[in-house]
Amino acid sequence: MKDDRILLAHGGGGRKTQSLIQEVMLRHFRDPVLARLDDAARLEMESRALAFTTDSYVVDPPFFPGGDIGKLAACGTINDLAMQAATPKFMSVGLILEEGFLVSDLNRALGSLAAVTRALGVVVATGDTKVVERGRGGGIFVNTSGIGIRPEGLDIGASRARPGDAVLVSGTIGDHGIAVMSVREGLAFETPLQSDVAPLWPLVAQLLEHRIAIHCLRDPTRGGLAAALCDVAAASDVGVRIREADLPVRREVRAACGLLGLDPLHVANEGKLVLICAAPDAPRALAVLREHSLGRDAAIMGQVEKGPKGVVRMETVAGGERVVEMPLGDELPRIC
Amino acid sequence: MKDDRILLAHGGGGRKTQSLIQEVMLRHFRDPVLARLDDAARLEMESRALAFTTDSYVVDPPFFPGGDIGKLAACGTINDLAMQAATPKFMSVGLILEEGFLVSDLNRALGSLAAVTRALGVVVATGDTKVVERGRGGGIFVNTSGIGIRPEGLDIGASRARPGDAVLVSGTIGDHGIAVMSVREGLAFETPLQSDVAPLWPLVAQLLEHRIAIHCLRDPTRGGLAAALCDVAAASDVGVRIREADLPVRREVRAACGLLGLDPLHVANEGKLVLICAAPDAPRALAVLREHSLGRDAAIMGQVEKGPKGVVRMETVAGGERVVEMPLGDELPRIC
Repeated sequence: MKDDRILLAHGGGGRKTQSLIQEVMLRHFRDPVLARLDDAARLEMESRALAFTTDSYVVDPPFFPGGDIGKLAACGTINDLAMQAATPKFMSVGLILEEGFLVSDLNRALGSLAAVTRALGVVVATGDTKVVERGRGGGIFVNTSGIGIRPEGLDIGASRARPGDAVLVSGTIGDHGIAVMSVREGLAFETPLQSDVAPLWPLVAQLLEHRIAIHCLRDPTRGGLAAALCDVAAASDVGVRIREADLPVRREVRAACGLLGLDPLHVANEGKLVLICAAPDAPRALAVLREHSLGRDAAIMGQVEKGPKGVVRMETVAGGERVVEMPLGDELPRIC
Repeated sequence: MKDDRILLAHGGGGRKTQSLIQEVMLRHFRDPVLARLDDAARLEMESRALAFTTDSYVVDPPFFPGGDIGKLAACGTINDLAMQAATPKFMSVGLILEEGFLVSDLNRALGSLAAVTRALGVVVATGDTKVVERGRGGGIFVNTSGIGIRPEGLDIGASRARPGDAVLVSGTIGDHGIAVMSVREGLAFETPLQSDVAPLWPLVAQLLEHRIAIHCLRDPTRGGLAAALCDVAAASDVGVRIREADLPVRREVRAACGLLGLDPLHVANEGKLVLICAAPDAPRALAVLREHSLGRDAAIMGQVEKGPKGVVRMETVAGGERVVEMPLGDELPRIC
């Protein structure tokens, strides 16, 4: 494209919008479903049992160690589908760009998004771009909605945890939030901490293939592990008990959390899942997770109990016990 | 909700987010599909032939004569589905709010959105809210994605116009764009001009029920009638000829366009459709449109010709002829 920065006219629906679509969007997304460029895409699904999700991404900065807003937007929506055990199939991409945003940065973000969808066979079927005046936006905001195919006869969800179930996590927690915060706060680590942003569908597909008795899957994004577990405890009307000693946390994340006054349990993850499954399946589930590169550091970290209902407790390494509270939510603005 | 303004914490994924969901979102959207509050909604579709679309809305100001950003977000996405002759079924709502946005304004916009979806039996199945710092957003941005059911065996689209086809418009053009601009520019009319924002699905359903031989449906939003017709001419590799005398334009819109230096053909509509159908069906199609309140001012305004390919021409009231150009796109920023 001739312009090296986004202009208001790129969102105006005329010739400038056409050139943005033809020279930028269609460079990254080539599927014939999209290329028709009608008001709505025409899909043929393999099943009538679908999962549908939406997320907007406003991460600041949009480029961070280990990823960027494009990769995040693809993974986040794929992961929301995967948490319903749904095979991700179609995605929409809605952009809100600020006048003056660099076209090269847009290309970089869209390239990251497209690399994830292409690798998983997810089709970007429809899209939209709006432009707002300089000073009225945040550079780039991305919305992705996703449609996936749910497996027949599998009923999983936040309300399906049962007393006795095992609680597993697929790897170290807090990496994404701290990687983003480290850029924002100018923290330096000996080895640069990377965001864990990754599509979790391949990991979920393995769990399904090995017929693990999944009751609940959650990706602990905003609000971290604490919010995910509190949600499940409340929705399933059970207690959850976890063991700090079994919780995988990187040394750098622990250090940064100390420095920033954060609890690693409250920090967002973008490539981790919490699995709640029937206890007898837990060792096999752990083996399945660990066999995959995304689950190398997986751990059985707790169990579901009858009560106290709606409460998450943690046995601390010091030998005590504390209640894990739902965070208030003001710790980490614009983390995803 | 206790807070009367949006805080960063409302987007943080913790307790504040929960209270926003429980006390604001679920007040407007009550469907059991949504109320599960899992990462993705579980849908059961009646068919495998779907339409899928997404749009972000950044209209400024968010409240304008005849509508607001909530109504616009519902109608815009329903209309994109309707332009594929698809029955709108499910919608997602993604909000990007600026810190400090009034909760009462949020309730007002969501109330408008919900009124439209409820009236058409469209289910808001999934949602997401992000909050950005004061000065980094535009008050409220809304993304809606939609899923609809396509009728079997109907192949319509921008590329299906054929020489000889009739070109109809469902009513007066330019009302939405000028209604929004009049607020922005402080224009006063004798009678206040209202946006035409409306869901077009009921009108399309009538056309389908009367078995009109539809070749192409477009809603002339950003870029106006000019962009919609230029798109069709290019995609179908045909010429389009319209007659200015047959184009319904309100007197106030014509006057405001004169004042603002705008061409009514370039101004956005949010409750109008362009229908291209087999010529013998045109009189019947016109009657069907006019019978509905949304199509009262419908007109047959032109026809499709062999060529010049990709070109839209207009016979002017003065007796001349001019080429209707695709607008550049910088005339009307943030009109939808």
